Amino acid sequence: MSYSIPALSDAILPKLQHKVDTKTKPLGALGLLENLAVQIGYIQQTLTPAINKPHMLVFAGDHGVANSGVSAYPQVVTQQMVLNFLAGGAAINVFCAQHGIALKIIDAGVNAELAEHPLLVNAKVAHGTNNYLEQAAMSVAQCEQALASGKVQVASVAAQGCNTIAFGEMGIGNTSAAALLMHVLTGVPLDECVGKGTGLDDEGVKNKLALLQKAANLHSLSAQNPMEALRCVGGLEIAMMVGAFLEAARLQMVIVVDGFIASAAALVAVHLCPLVLEYCIFSHCSDEHGHKHMINALGVTPLLQLGLRLGEGSGAAVAMPLLQSAVLFLNKMASFEAAGVSQAEGN
Amino acid sequence: MSYSIPALSDAILPKLQHKVDTKTKPLGALGLLENLAVQIGYIQQTLTPAINKPHMLVFAGDHGVANSGVSAYPQVVTQQMVLNFLAGGAAINVFCAQHGIALKIIDAGVNAELAEHPLLVNAKVAHGTNNYLEQAAMSVAQCEQALASGKVQVASVAAQGCNTIAFGEMGIGNTSAAALLMHVLTGVPLDECVGKGTGLDDEGVKNKLALLQKAANLHSLSAQNPMEALRCVGGLEIAMMVGAFLEAARLQMVIVVDGFIASAAALVAVHLCPLVLEYCIFSHCSDEHGHKHMINALGVTPLLQLGLRLGEGSGAAVAMPLLQSAVLFLNKMASFEAAGVSQAEGN
Repeated sequence: MSYSIPALSDAILPKLQHKVDTKTKPLGALGLLENLAVQIGYIQQTLTPAINKPHMLVFAGDHGVANSGVSAYPQVVTQQMVLNFLAGGAAINVFCAQHGIALKIIDAGVNAELAEHPLLVNAKVAHGTNNYLEQAAMSVAQCEQALASGKVQVASVAAQGCNTIAFGEMGIGNTSAAALLMHVLTGVPLDECVGKGTGLDDEGVKNKLALLQKAANLHSLSAQNPMEALRCVGGLEIAMMVGAFLEAARLQMVIVVDGFIASAAALVAVHLCPLVLEYCIFSHCSDEHGHKHMINALGVTPLLQLGLRLGEGSGAAVAMPLLQSAVLFLNKMASFEAAGVSQAEGN
Repeated sequence: MSYSIPALSDAILPKLQHKVDTKTKPLGALGLLENLAVQIGYIQQTLTPAINKPHMLVFAGDHGVANSGVSAYPQVVTQQMVLNFLAGGAAINVFCAQHGIALKIIDAGVNAELAEHPLLVNAKVAHGTNNYLEQAAMSVAQCEQALASGKVQVASVAAQGCNTIAFGEMGIGNTSAAALLMHVLTGVPLDECVGKGTGLDDEGVKNKLALLQKAANLHSLSAQNPMEALRCVGGLEIAMMVGAFLEAARLQMVIVVDGFIASAAALVAVHLCPLVLEYCIFSHCSDEHGHKHMINALGVTPLLQLGLRLGEGSGAAVAMPLLQSAVLFLNKMASFEAAGVSQAEGN
């Protein structure tokens, strides 16, 4: 399957690096901000990149497995937290408002009827997934609908002039889906992929691992068929996010990846089309157990290590000023020549 | 000597922690942002802290040792970079403008006459320090003048309603002074304190280490006399920053510590008065070799690990939105009760 994602031209890379290196600072002294400036310039194929109308799309969905003992919270919390998002009371509201990030909540598959709200997009595929301890989480049609809908959400935001997009999620049970997807696609042993999620104790994590091992045995999962893995053990919010990743890359947007679940969606998208990875900025390394292994498997360097494990897109939102800093130093700092500053000996 | 720094009351700590824990998020899910919220509330002794009129004071000074082979850049770069700050072309200008941080450049001891400028404060103690390879860097009177002047700078900013202050620096040769101070005050071997600064190669670092070993042998330096160590091998900008730390703590301000040199000044201040540490937020772990050891010696956890090694206060400026995030989530997020969200089982 082709996803029409543009391969970026490397021709601009030395020019970007030269621009970074002639700024009034020692070579490399801005660390990861320099890599970030180069990556954003590379994605946008310009020496003067910009972050325009950044958006956060939070995909929400319920998981059939949620009440089988994989989460510290009951399934009803998904809808309660969506209402909290709509009321403006969650962490993601606070951080998006702080950084001027437009926020949309996408109902991908919440197990409740949600009233209309200006922040809410009704893209509900079903009232949650099936329990993958018994059957595939989604039908083929449901999985395809979720992917297609994720693309529509991104295209709609891009049409408004947004060139930088972050994805968050809410779904009780979704660290379990993410752990299974990670296990299948990276080959990392399942016990390294499973963590405490929203706050299981050691006994709870053990139980979660046993259940997920059962799910892994039940389905025919393989890294060669990421779409089937997504369908069997994924979530509607994760599938919709996969579609969103694919479309954002196709539209050459800067994609800010949040934590464990968003990275699992990115992983599926990258398995479907490796070029997606070039468009992804990994905002942080989550405190959720498996995330550092996922980061390693993807071969990427996250910006922040704050021990966050909240989801909602919170880490991506908190990292947004770093993208701005990268773009601003590239565009606004003086060069040695312009500022009349002597360079290091040998330079 | 007493510095009249208030000991903070621990009584508020459980109340702050309770407020953090009842927010609509799993316990601990905001990681270091939670610690940060508690620390800022603790410093301000309130459950509703605020970051008011944040300021960045960049102290600039020259070092007599600068042209003896300890730096990749010639001494003249200190004044050139100060002019770059005044013209708005440096990284610190960009990041302060981005985050609404008021910027002041303090001439503590630049080896040049600088014309008046709205951003510049003339607090020049001398045209640079003496070369500590030959004699003490400062006289007793100079060191005392620098400390006193640092206090005046902070008091002046506090009087304008600023409650959050960050300190940066510019001074060719000042990673050498910082390495010596760190070595003396922490007991970490000198070779672990010495790094490449603005960009020495391996041979340059070796030469720098040999010179600094010579300086360490020449003077009577001991952890029991931090003031004498500061006088013998410090810089005017470092001494002024030490005074600034002491005054900011006395005025119960939130202090954002930048990288290697600012941490060395903090280390001196903490040795003069341990209570200073309670007011300090360490913004990042610098890529300068010794900084991680200094961070460990201080027993603190820095917010960012971006591989920055620029100085100027750049890391502190880049970290400022994290302080804002911490304060905002504490003040604005809904509690479980207010939002009607179910808590985890057992909570």
